[in-house]
Amino acid sequence: MRKVRVVQWGFGAMGRGIARLLSRRLGVEIVAVCDTNPELLGKSMDEVLEIASEGRSEVRITDSIEEALANTPVDICVIATDSFVRGVFPKIKAVVEKGVNVLTIAEEMAFPWAQEKELADRMDALARGHRVSILGTGINPGLMMDLLAVCLSGAMTDVRHVKCERVNSLSPFGKTVMEEQGIGITVEDFEKGVREGTLAGHVGFRESAAMISKALNLRYDSLDQQMLPIVTDVDRRSPHGFAPKGHVAGVNMTAQAKAGDREVISLIHPQQIEPEQVGVNTGDYIVLTGEPPISMAVKPEVNGGLGTIAMACNMLPFVVAARPGLLTMLDLPVPRCVMGDYREIAFGEA
Amino acid sequence: MRKVRVVQWGFGAMGRGIARLLSRRLGVEIVAVCDTNPELLGKSMDEVLEIASEGRSEVRITDSIEEALANTPVDICVIATDSFVRGVFPKIKAVVEKGVNVLTIAEEMAFPWAQEKELADRMDALARGHRVSILGTGINPGLMMDLLAVCLSGAMTDVRHVKCERVNSLSPFGKTVMEEQGIGITVEDFEKGVREGTLAGHVGFRESAAMISKALNLRYDSLDQQMLPIVTDVDRRSPHGFAPKGHVAGVNMTAQAKAGDREVISLIHPQQIEPEQVGVNTGDYIVLTGEPPISMAVKPEVNGGLGTIAMACNMLPFVVAARPGLLTMLDLPVPRCVMGDYREIAFGEA
Repeated sequence: MRKVRVVQWGFGAMGRGIARLLSRRLGVEIVAVCDTNPELLGKSMDEVLEIASEGRSEVRITDSIEEALANTPVDICVIATDSFVRGVFPKIKAVVEKGVNVLTIAEEMAFPWAQEKELADRMDALARGHRVSILGTGINPGLMMDLLAVCLSGAMTDVRHVKCERVNSLSPFGKTVMEEQGIGITVEDFEKGVREGTLAGHVGFRESAAMISKALNLRYDSLDQQMLPIVTDVDRRSPHGFAPKGHVAGVNMTAQAKAGDREVISLIHPQQIEPEQVGVNTGDYIVLTGEPPISMAVKPEVNGGLGTIAMACNMLPFVVAARPGLLTMLDLPVPRCVMGDYREIAFGEA
Repeated sequence: MRKVRVVQWGFGAMGRGIARLLSRRLGVEIVAVCDTNPELLGKSMDEVLEIASEGRSEVRITDSIEEALANTPVDICVIATDSFVRGVFPKIKAVVEKGVNVLTIAEEMAFPWAQEKELADRMDALARGHRVSILGTGINPGLMMDLLAVCLSGAMTDVRHVKCERVNSLSPFGKTVMEEQGIGITVEDFEKGVREGTLAGHVGFRESAAMISKALNLRYDSLDQQMLPIVTDVDRRSPHGFAPKGHVAGVNMTAQAKAGDREVISLIHPQQIEPEQVGVNTGDYIVLTGEPPISMAVKPEVNGGLGTIAMACNMLPFVVAARPGLLTMLDLPVPRCVMGDYREIAFGEA
């Protein structure tokens, strides 16, 4: 039986990590890579990944998705190019219209109905029309601040409130993340960045809240979101960042979903460099209030980069096997580290 | 649209808990109850549950499953009568042959291929033949020592070892559990009970290990299991149990799955009365060794009785909606506390 054939669209840090992991997995192969970075054009995938080709056919990076998808059959296209539904929508449309399944790590695609109902409905109709499935996934949104809370609630008879907290360190990340999160800048510049939308912060709270709400029927009618600087009272230095005393060492994002006056979901996600230096314990924490109450801690936090790469690669064969339509993590089987042959899941009985 | 119609088979502590919870849920109703306990025969379900009937038709307890299933249509039968595949098999067969889906909390049914491959294959064929699905679930096996570890592994690129530990208190349980677990007896009597098979201990390690192994392709060729007394060095007294100093205050069950000499799965499940008295912290702990490593703690442990009742009621609509066959928790969507209308899941689009 032939392997599961994958086109990788987007060959940045995440796209490369996905390709590198898939090259080690069984019964799956990348048949084309598409990226618009001129430095990558025409280069061999294995060369860029710095891995041995081990008898695989050479894959040269193209900037044309039509060319990439022409290497038929293609079972699924992994899109790692965007964070927002609006940005990734035309790409998804192009792939689906070729009759190819889509998995994307665009954060808003974890629950696209949360903010982009019209586009979500269009994608769903497109996917059904072309008999393919579309899934957005990742570590967060996708698992640690939503699906994992949903999974734990399976042991409960009633849930009144969900709190998900992810306290992580930005120290392992590079220059880009330092800039996106405003590491080392003044509070004034931070506030300007928030106002002008130049500081990214975390994308996904609205999606996580909507996923939890849908799963548990825990309705809310307002969702407030805050983005505040984490100001350090000591100098903090990480491999790629430096925050002098009095400057920004990270971003604390919080959100509260309320039904009337009653809060039903609370999301807390402070990200900073060198949290240990000020006694902050990183981790993923979930507190479910109800019967029986459940309090979970994962310490330290699950690594965000590796976690997103893993989630994409691990959900991939399930997307190939799934029913047509725009899906979410709520529709598919429990995620798992797929160390067996991808064909058993992708082409086996659903 | 009519409600999801359930027949409850087995009306002990778990069966009653399931019926009580379903009576509060939306879009679902119990249409018949079957139990062989002569004290229950002919009694009204609501009366036994001590709940108001709130306009529901009266359900009188019968000892005939034929009579219970005759109240058609029946969407699913919940079987809470047995722990072992061999015991529950004829019951499942009888229900499936009537064209009715089955959910059971029989521990070995969480992964019946682990110890009863032939019966599992027969159940699978029967279910497919009659176009219904069968699921075994519960808190353990079913979630805390298997599916939850699987779910967390979704964030990993490689898993080399899985350790699941469930440290729980038996103090909330009644006389029956005290006797089954040997609370208060001498070490000599405990060892005799283990030899003669009169002490129950935990049922489900082989099933949990097999489920993890299947999900992660983490193969093993041997599984050793130990059942040792937890001997107390102080007097311990719980509402329904008493273990004098030097006697048995609980049971420590452990298992190791090995591929050759290499341990790949370790299961540890000490259950005892009044663990706090000797400084034991109850909780559910999962340690996944690999990339990235993940260490999870749920403290205190998820309540076993409520948890099993919740898992049964929460998975129920997914079993009605599922494809035909003998299924496991690996095949179905992520568990969740179903607080919305059961019909949306059971009769909605799969």
